[in-house]
Amino acid sequence: MEKTRLEAFSDGVLAIIITIMVLELKVPHGEDIAALAPLWPVFASYVLSFIYIGIYWNNHHHMLQAADKISGAILWANLHLLFWLSLLPFSTGWMGENHFARWPTFLYGLNLLACAIAYFILQTALASLHGPRSTLVRALGRDAKGKFSPLLYLLGLAATWWIAPWAGLFLFIGVALIWLIPDRRIERLLATRP
Amino acid sequence: MEKTRLEAFSDGVLAIIITIMVLELKVPHGEDIAALAPLWPVFASYVLSFIYIGIYWNNHHHMLQAADKISGAILWANLHLLFWLSLLPFSTGWMGENHFARWPTFLYGLNLLACAIAYFILQTALASLHGPRSTLVRALGRDAKGKFSPLLYLLGLAATWWIAPWAGLFLFIGVALIWLIPDRRIERLLATRP
Amino acid sequence: MEKTRLEAFSDGVLAIIITIMVLELKVPHGEDIAALAPLWPVFASYVLSFIYIGIYWNNHHHMLQAADKISGAILWANLHLLFWLSLLPFSTGWMGENHFARWPTFLYGLNLLACAIAYFILQTALASLHGPRSTLVRALGRDAKGKFSPLLYLLGLAATWWIAPWAGLFLFIGVALIWLIPDRRIERLLATRP
Amino acid sequence: MEKTRLEAFSDGVLAIIITIMVLELKVPHGEDIAALAPLWPVFASYVLSFIYIGIYWNNHHHMLQAADKISGAILWANLHLLFWLSLLPFSTGWMGENHFARWPTFLYGLNLLACAIAYFILQTALASLHGPRSTLVRALGRDAKGKFSPLLYLLGLAATWWIAPWAGLFLFIGVALIWLIPDRRIERLLATRP
Repeated sequence: MEKTRLEAFSDGVLAIIITIMVLELKVPHGEDIAALAPLWPVFASYVLSFIYIGIYWNNHHHMLQAADKISGAILWANLHLLFWLSLLPFSTGWMGENHFARWPTFLYGLNLLACAIAYFILQTALASLHGPRSTLVRALGRDAKGKFSPLLYLLGLAATWWIAPWAGLFLFIGVALIWLIPDRRIERLLATRP
Repeated sequence: MEKTRLEAFSDGVLAIIITIMVLELKVPHGEDIAALAPLWPVFASYVLSFIYIGIYWNNHHHMLQAADKISGAILWANLHLLFWLSLLPFSTGWMGENHFARWPTFLYGLNLLACAIAYFILQTALASLHGPRSTLVRALGRDAKGKFSPLLYLLGLAATWWIAPWAGLFLFIGVALIWLIPDRRIERLLATRP
Repeated sequence: MEKTRLEAFSDGVLAIIITIMVLELKVPHGEDIAALAPLWPVFASYVLSFIYIGIYWNNHHHMLQAADKISGAILWANLHLLFWLSLLPFSTGWMGENHFARWPTFLYGLNLLACAIAYFILQTALASLHGPRSTLVRALGRDAKGKFSPLLYLLGLAATWWIAPWAGLFLFIGVALIWLIPDRRIERLLATRP
Repeated sequence: MEKTRLEAFSDGVLAIIITIMVLELKVPHGEDIAALAPLWPVFASYVLSFIYIGIYWNNHHHMLQAADKISGAILWANLHLLFWLSLLPFSTGWMGENHFARWPTFLYGLNLLACAIAYFILQTALASLHGPRSTLVRALGRDAKGKFSPLLYLLGLAATWWIAPWAGLFLFIGVALIWLIPDRRIERLLATRP
């Protein structure tokens, strides 16, 4: 019952974040198709962030399904995650409007990293509340993706800085793809490796 | 239980989409009734898109009522549908502000077509998850409207391009009316045809 | 169960309407208290519309509590009500920014009237679905307020036009007060009248 | 059941308030990190208000968990609280854009005070509805924090006016910290005092 309201509030915030990002996509003044051309970086950023919010909603949904209690600390760990996610419309907009320039792309990567760390904190708090033998902890498993993602973000940040923003974006898109592809395939893939 | 949160998130996103569209209807500066006159195309577009979001919410509501399980693929098919619906405020705004010019009307039609295809994918994924003998599949029936709508959108796109935007709009409004009119009448009408 | 999702969607839309109205209250540029002075008509309009949305949410909440089934027609009657309510941020903003000028105040009154009619349609549809002996119909009672309000709005529209906007506003505020004061007192008041 | 919808509506409004505040954080035009520098007061205000909304959501959540009935008066006391909270994006934006100048900081403090009073009214209404022996009243306890906070806000308002805005902010941040730190520690701290 407690859990229900945490989920409802998170759903509300995530639904609003995913939808207000589209407000950055400002209606152009011309009526020609050429008027849309300058919008492509904003649109591409929107698509990427929409997928990221979708991934977070999906994972949040699955994690809380396995949880059967929450605490005051969990409520705050959850709000901390929502805080970093709420900054995504801003960093997405800055990156899109500046055509993936170095600093905005770097900040976008930092924002993704902060979200990943906040998610990890929430997950750790939930795991320690439920104990090592709980369904939740068993459902999380080794959490290879969760541990790998921050490393890839860091690599992406370094690539943005020392190589070029497109190199960083390549990695940020890569992390999204890793999460989009259903778990089992990845796990089977990892399992077949020597 | 899983289903509940999918519905809650979809309700949230649809509620926000339907409401932020009204933000395109910018408060005019004059205090005379004449100040409202230039807003009529934006208002008319708003009404049409409001009805469309209403139809999608309605159908989504009914389809998920008949569903009794969901999967990871369903979550993503649902997010895919919400993505195209989230672009409606943008395409509605562009069409309205340009007084139903050719390109904006064409893009609006494309957006409607993309929503219809995304809905079809979600419906197909749900049907294959539940199996051919499920209540869901029987509730969907032959789905004459669902199969007919994309064809009408394509016809509308062609009409927008080769005839005039009002001809395309005529068809886009027509599809909305087909969905607004209660099912049974349509079905009885189709049934009485030889 | 069906009802739950109708309520959730309506709650979402009403929550967004009530909150985006505050966006019309634009942050002023000066840092002095004098910078807030020009905002008072926008603020006063916001307060009035906030109360109206609150009243609608309240009544909607009570009416649906007494309902135990809904239908496709109810879903559309509900969306029709939400449509007129969704225009309130626009008409509120126009009235506020033009300091309660005649036309904007008249339009605001028309919007309130349209909401009242839409609510009446929803209520009638629910009553006819549940039948004259249902708890819902008995809970609605004679519905003196519901029948009286549209008359007061019409009177307010006439007063706005032929007397002055403040006269109309006086009536629009009056209707809100009638609904704010708990029912029993009003009913007792009406009961003691000869 | 009644309670559920009150919670759902409040969650919706709070989720929207917390998220639209980020819209004040306007995407800067330059692509350099220096373009972000002027945003720091807006960002800092956003963080503070995010935490405040989080605290209110948290306390609202706990209080309603202990409640087992609501009334018409409770619905309005709740809407009254939401009204003052809905003004936070405005007062936060005014304070941030004017770099914590005297008047905007004073107004921000007044807004926090109004929210605290509205919360107190809601709590009192719930307590009187449930009676002195209810779980709710026992859960609220002496409510040291709740009684102390308005005093600290008043002190902060005085400090903003007669000392400097940073002195007031120091107290407004202090109140937030008092609420953030888990209850038990505070209570133990207070218990060990002579």
